[in-house]
Amino acid sequence: MIQHWIRFQYLDTTGFGTLDGDTIHIYSGNMYDSPKPTDGTVRLDAVKVLMPSVPGKVLAMWNNFHALGQKLGVAPPLEPVYLLKTDNSYLNPDEIIRKPLCDGKVAFEGELGIIIKKTAFNVAEEDALDYVFGYTCANDVTVNDIIKRDPAFQQWVRAKGFDTFCPFGPVVASGLDPATLVVRTVLNGEVRQDYPISDMVFTVAQLVSLISKDMTLNAGDLILCGTSVGVGSMKPGSVVEVTIDGIGTLRNRFDS
Amino acid sequence: MIQHWIRFQYLDTTGFGTLDGDTIHIYSGNMYDSPKPTDGTVRLDAVKVLMPSVPGKVLAMWNNFHALGQKLGVAPPLEPVYLLKTDNSYLNPDEIIRKPLCDGKVAFEGELGIIIKKTAFNVAEEDALDYVFGYTCANDVTVNDIIKRDPAFQQWVRAKGFDTFCPFGPVVASGLDPATLVVRTVLNGEVRQDYPISDMVFTVAQLVSLISKDMTLNAGDLILCGTSVGVGSMKPGSVVEVTIDGIGTLRNRFDS
Repeated sequence: MIQHWIRFQYLDTTGFGTLDGDTIHIYSGNMYDSPKPTDGTVRLDAVKVLMPSVPGKVLAMWNNFHALGQKLGVAPPLEPVYLLKTDNSYLNPDEIIRKPLCDGKVAFEGELGIIIKKTAFNVAEEDALDYVFGYTCANDVTVNDIIKRDPAFQQWVRAKGFDTFCPFGPVVASGLDPATLVVRTVLNGEVRQDYPISDMVFTVAQLVSLISKDMTLNAGDLILCGTSVGVGSMKPGSVVEVTIDGIGTLRNRFDS
Repeated sequence: MIQHWIRFQYLDTTGFGTLDGDTIHIYSGNMYDSPKPTDGTVRLDAVKVLMPSVPGKVLAMWNNFHALGQKLGVAPPLEPVYLLKTDNSYLNPDEIIRKPLCDGKVAFEGELGIIIKKTAFNVAEEDALDYVFGYTCANDVTVNDIIKRDPAFQQWVRAKGFDTFCPFGPVVASGLDPATLVVRTVLNGEVRQDYPISDMVFTVAQLVSLISKDMTLNAGDLILCGTSVGVGSMKPGSVVEVTIDGIGTLRNRFDS
C-alpha cells in the first residue's frame, strides 16, 4: 500500500500523519515505528507543511547517474561517493532558498531522497529495502564555483552547505518501487530535468547496503541519490519545482 | 575565570556542571545560556563522562597549520577549507574507537575543538570570540587511503565519517586564550604530536567569523581546528590521548 507521510505545524503544535487528497489523517507515536492512527484530521490548507523528517544526517551522492557521468566525461564510480549536507541547509517545502553572502551562481539539482526507517549497519543488499521508510523529493542546491577553487581540497561540503541549500519534501511516500520513478525539475514553468531513477549507477538497495557498511544510518536520515543532466542556475525570484510522480512536488522560491 | 564544563551520566540521568578537582558541581538549565548552579555535587569517579556537547554539526578544518602544510608541500589556503563529520562518528571520552569494516590504516589526529555558545551568522572577526563557549580536545580519526582513491571526487567525509571517528572531550574549558594552547597527542605512552595553536593559518576568531559567513552556527556546534605534524596510525589495542594543558586529556582505545 502506498502512503504519503507528512509532517506539519498547526497552530503551536507539530504533528504528522498520512495525506489523502486535501486531508491529513493525524497519527501519534513514532512515525517510523508503529505509528498509531488517531480520530483526528486536519485540512492540508490549514497547516504549514514541514520537511518530512528531521535527519540526523543527510548524505548526498555524486556521479550516480550514467547520463550525467557521460556528459561530464567521468567514469562511473566503483563505490558510492558522497558528501554530507549541513543541518543549517535543511529547508521546509515552500520556504525560500536564500542566496549566500559569497559570489557564484546558485544551481538547482532535483533529486530522489531516501528516508531511513530504522537503525542500519552492515546491511546486506537483499535486506536493504527493509530499512527504507520511503522516498521524497529534494533539491541539492550548490554553488559549483567553490568546489575546486582551492588547488588541494575539493570543497563539496561548503559548496552545498549554505543555509537553506537542502529543501526536501513535501511528503515521504512509502510502498513505492523506486526503480520506476522519474525526477522532473521545473524552473519558472520550464522543464529542465526529466530523468529516470533506473539510470542510477547504484540502486537504492545498493546505496543503503554499501553506505551502511561505512556508517550507522538511523531513522529519519536522508540519502540524496545524486542528480542527472539538466542542472542549471537560478536567478533571484526563480521558482524551482522538483516533481516525482507518486510522491509529489517540492516547490521553493530562490531569492536574495 | 576559567571553568571546565562537563556533561555526565549518573544512574539514568544526564546532567552537566563544572569540574573542580574530582568534584562536579551540578548546574541546571541551558549550559550555553545562563546555566543555574544547584546545591548538588557528584564525584567524578561516580559518573560516566559524556561528550561535552551534542553538536548539530562538526566542521573539521584541513590544512590549517603552517608546519603541516610545509611538510605536505601545500600552500596555506586562502580561506578555511573544511569537511563535515557525521553524527555517527561522535564518541564519548574513554569509549572505544572501532576499526571500520573497510581496509586501510586508521590514523589519529589530535586537534583543538571550538564549542559554539550561541547562534552565529555573519559575525565580524572582532566579535567572534563572544560566540565561543569554550575549547575541548578532539581526535579527528581518519582512513587516509580512501580520500583520493576515486579519481574525480575526494572522499573526505567518508574517510573521516566512520562510526566512533570523532571522540571529543572530556570537558569544555571556557575563559582560556586559545592562542596560548599546545596540543599533545600521546600514542601508547609516546608523544607523537606536540604543536602550538599559535601556528594556525586562521585563528579561532577568524575561523568562527569566516565560517559564519557561509552558514549559521548554533550552540553546541563543534569546529575542529585541523591538525599539525606527527599524525600516525593506530594498531588494535592502541591507546591514544589528546592533551591540551588548561583543558584536560581525551583518552580512547582503538580496537577491532
